[in-house]
Amino acid sequence: MARRTDIMDTIVSLAKRRGLVYPSSEIYGGLRASWDYGPLGVELKNNVKRQWWKTMVQGRDDVVGLDSCVILAREVWQASGHVETFTDPLTECQSCHKRYRADHLEEAYEDKHGKAPENGLADITCPNCGNKGAFTQPKQFSGLLKTYLGAVEDESGLAYLRPETAQGIFINYLNVQQSARRKIPFGIGQIGKSFRNEITPGNFIFRTREFEQMEMEFFVKPGSDEEWHQYWIDERFRWYTDLGIIPENLRLYEHPKEKLSHYSKRTVDIEYRFNFTGGEWGELEGIANRTDFDLTAHGKASGTDLSFFEQESGERYVPYVIEPAAGVDRATLTFLIDAYTEDEAPNAKGVMEKRTVMRLDHRLAPVKVAVLPLSRNADLSPKAKDLAAQLRRRWNVEFDDAGAIGRRYRRQDEIGTPFCVTVDFDTLEDHAVTIRERDSMTQERVALDKVDSYLRQHLND
Amino acid sequence: MARRTDIMDTIVSLAKRRGLVYPSSEIYGGLRASWDYGPLGVELKNNVKRQWWKTMVQGRDDVVGLDSCVILAREVWQASGHVETFTDPLTECQSCHKRYRADHLEEAYEDKHGKAPENGLADITCPNCGNKGAFTQPKQFSGLLKTYLGAVEDESGLAYLRPETAQGIFINYLNVQQSARRKIPFGIGQIGKSFRNEITPGNFIFRTREFEQMEMEFFVKPGSDEEWHQYWIDERFRWYTDLGIIPENLRLYEHPKEKLSHYSKRTVDIEYRFNFTGGEWGELEGIANRTDFDLTAHGKASGTDLSFFEQESGERYVPYVIEPAAGVDRATLTFLIDAYTEDEAPNAKGVMEKRTVMRLDHRLAPVKVAVLPLSRNADLSPKAKDLAAQLRRRWNVEFDDAGAIGRRYRRQDEIGTPFCVTVDFDTLEDHAVTIRERDSMTQERVALDKVDSYLRQHLND
Repeated sequence: MARRTDIMDTIVSLAKRRGLVYPSSEIYGGLRASWDYGPLGVELKNNVKRQWWKTMVQGRDDVVGLDSCVILAREVWQASGHVETFTDPLTECQSCHKRYRADHLEEAYEDKHGKAPENGLADITCPNCGNKGAFTQPKQFSGLLKTYLGAVEDESGLAYLRPETAQGIFINYLNVQQSARRKIPFGIGQIGKSFRNEITPGNFIFRTREFEQMEMEFFVKPGSDEEWHQYWIDERFRWYTDLGIIPENLRLYEHPKEKLSHYSKRTVDIEYRFNFTGGEWGELEGIANRTDFDLTAHGKASGTDLSFFEQESGERYVPYVIEPAAGVDRATLTFLIDAYTEDEAPNAKGVMEKRTVMRLDHRLAPVKVAVLPLSRNADLSPKAKDLAAQLRRRWNVEFDDAGAIGRRYRRQDEIGTPFCVTVDFDTLEDHAVTIRERDSMTQERVALDKVDSYLRQHLND
Repeated sequence: MARRTDIMDTIVSLAKRRGLVYPSSEIYGGLRASWDYGPLGVELKNNVKRQWWKTMVQGRDDVVGLDSCVILAREVWQASGHVETFTDPLTECQSCHKRYRADHLEEAYEDKHGKAPENGLADITCPNCGNKGAFTQPKQFSGLLKTYLGAVEDESGLAYLRPETAQGIFINYLNVQQSARRKIPFGIGQIGKSFRNEITPGNFIFRTREFEQMEMEFFVKPGSDEEWHQYWIDERFRWYTDLGIIPENLRLYEHPKEKLSHYSKRTVDIEYRFNFTGGEWGELEGIANRTDFDLTAHGKASGTDLSFFEQESGERYVPYVIEPAAGVDRATLTFLIDAYTEDEAPNAKGVMEKRTVMRLDHRLAPVKVAVLPLSRNADLSPKAKDLAAQLRRRWNVEFDDAGAIGRRYRRQDEIGTPFCVTVDFDTLEDHAVTIRERDSMTQERVALDKVDSYLRQHLND
């Protein structure tokens, strides 16, 4: 069960073949670094989002949800600092004209040589054409995507597509706090799309211009912020391992003080061992102590008092904010890579053959149950279809009657379906079916009228 | 229980006060016709989406899901006809400079006078300033919002924000059909945001520039399209009534042949009696027979064969498409308006008082259960909190211990919470609680260890 070195290629190919993720706009030759989620992918992604929502919002008495617009008032992005500072240093190799982020080139150099390049870009070799030091002076390049609202395409209608969902939370802080009658500490969680004009998107669904975030802003009393920050780092790490990620494939990365974002007092990333070509570890989630930067900035820019009056102590303060910010697409990719395993299973002739199993946590599996009539048959098929229809009321179910039963099991293993229910000729006599479990491949005979409760129990619904 | 004439104002005000929907970017003075969903609103909206997904995708063996990008290749919108024809006729009153859609002005005239204006806009009075016939010649105005990808803001990076999710389905048709191994007829459903540069957004969340769609494209054999079209009209009408919409508030509107969109053979709208200032009925959902227009256009423009070979008959054809296209925000607004009722209930002194009840279907209610300790008390509070924590594993739960119990019931009635569980002093003795039902206000005493199963049964989970 060793991790394959070509795991990313394997996942990309499996994803397309089985309808998890397709290259977007493929019939038109594709749009760079854009991906569409297919029938299985959308179920997997929805399950990831649902688990986050259940853990971070619905399951807690101190967090509520929100769904704010992608396009907010322009002032929001001025006050937040995005218009001015949400930029990346863009450089171009003068030899092959490929564009890079200068900071990414320097980081890669440092990773390789153990120290920063003494003469900056002049020391660095172009990863594309191999020429050294042929880079242009880096230019600051805005990561904000613009659009224009209204009849005329000019400054008056200029608007930005949000690069993060967080600001939608900050500008609604007061409305939420008052309408939900909340006291500090409490949090506001949100799931939604964000857009960034990335210079170098890539690595499948890891870095794309359009992506989905799961962000929660937790408002705390200044002074309690460091403790809450550590609490959320621990909680978020646990969320991934609880959903099956192997702890050895995760690590915490502490941002060096001198590289912190302008709003941050301390930021810790949860990284996953993606084994990309460009690096072993990649950011899965960032957990930042944003201090009172955002509420203070919006309070000042909008002329609204965003301070909180604490009745018990008689104190008034602007809350500090702890932000666990996760990416839906990155989490989905992580669950896929980590669940991918190959083992062996006997084929129809008893010979051991390679078996691909997606060992996804049951809560994440895109299909919960597959119903398989042993063969296409006038007696078996309707019985199996009835059962599938019944189970479909509660779960996402596949019905498959094409090909040998062994091959159909393999198809379900490959997409991580926890249970296969086989309707065979004995079923017509004993009104029972065989339920096969994905990982152990053990089989149990279960009465037809007990299938629902058996699955409920084992899927831990 | 008569419908109030000021229902929209009532709903907008209740929505803000209770955290269903806030004016977006409000601290910055708002962004016209933009709304953010608060803690209760996001739950309600998620429930609407979940019901659609359960009915239209997961619950069916002939429909699968998809989640495609907002930004697709530019060629998609050329082939679909959007670049050329997705326009509205924009006119401006030369007297007050207010902008209108010319077709909307003409329709309003026709509604009022029972006939079209003989001299077009020259007959029409400006609804804003009252001047007659002061409108400019209408100009075609594109409804597509543009953005620019990449380092330079020019034509090379021009991209559009999708104005409908449907095209993302058509361009993935082949990938889905093959990877999900589907035969005609089958459908592909998708939920996601779309963006339109509306000239006259308005009426709360009815018409906004940024909105969420629930679209399903059902691919059928040519010749069976009319029958399938009728099937989906009936199914979609039933979806709303099944979720509690009063049938008398719904009607079907058949688009006149001469006003059909360029891709449509027949379109029927499901309309709801919104009672807007501008008109009694408004479109809730459109169900179109799009013929083979889209697949043919994309097949031709991309050079990809999008025809289907039907093994049984040996025929090859480009499938026809039936499209039920619903709006998440419109559906949410409809469920809110239709559920809003006022009746009377006795207050603490036994005097009848006005009661606002949101009679939402249990499946849609943002909060399923409220747990209310009779008073703030060292014995009652922990017991009630334990119960709330336990119920939270399955449902969205509110805990409320502030104020008189009667007022707390009213708060829950107003947001449509089906059940209130009261922990009182008897609970400490009999280990039971009182469960109150929203509509009938009847109360039942239920043992603490039976609350979970009681609610499961009554919430029909």
